[in-house]
Amino acid sequence: MEQVNLADKLASFTEHWSPKIVGELNGQHVKLAKFRGEFVWHSHADEDELFMVLHGSFEMLFRDRAVTVGEGEFLIVPRGEEHCPRAEQEVHVLLFEPVETVNTGTAGGERTVSELERI
Amino acid sequence: MEQVNLADKLASFTEHWSPKIVGELNGQHVKLAKFRGEFVWHSHADEDELFMVLHGSFEMLFRDRAVTVGEGEFLIVPRGEEHCPRAEQEVHVLLFEPVETVNTGTAGGERTVSELERI
Repeated sequence: MEQVNLADKLASFTEHWSPKIVGELNGQHVKLAKFRGEFVWHSHADEDELFMVLHGSFEMLFRDRAVTVGEGEFLIVPRGEEHCPRAEQEVHVLLFEPVETVNTGTAGGERTVSELERI
Repeated sequence: MEQVNLADKLASFTEHWSPKIVGELNGQHVKLAKFRGEFVWHSHADEDELFMVLHGSFEMLFRDRAVTVGEGEFLIVPRGEEHCPRAEQEVHVLLFEPVETVNTGTAGGERTVSELERI
């Protein structure tokens, strides 16, 4: 039971598209990630995902539209909904999602991170 | 699936100790609250709680110590742990906790908010 400083945690890594675990509660993980560029299209069969922007902004692409999420905003992507995050500039994001969540969902592929680091 | 702006939501209410629901996912609520003064000692039998400070700072009192949580920091309070938030100045907090969570936990009393507003 210690406070967690988001800026300190964000300063401790540089990789893109590799979420780090910074907290766990009620079967959910709190993660931090840095995005830049475009990820892969995917969905999650059983998990809703929350993306909260701490610094910068990004676009969440859906098959029929895009939603821009800016600093101080969050977006919840429901399970089953295909999505693809894209960030022209580096963006720092906090994620809330079930501990079972895999970054690439059911799509898999080379950008899958199967063992998330705790920082 | 729309982005939620935290500052806009925070500007829409003034009450202290009355969390508002701003999102729901995986059986969890995302809430916003304003604290000022001291709340009541309580614990939650089955729910862990996350408190993230968006503006200001507060102290989380435990029976044997206190933890200061500042802007850009979060604290997770595990189920069963008695706690009491105290804020000398108004603080804006994001909460992440199961939908069943009651603000006063098992303590009850006049500060219990049984029907949370969605904003």
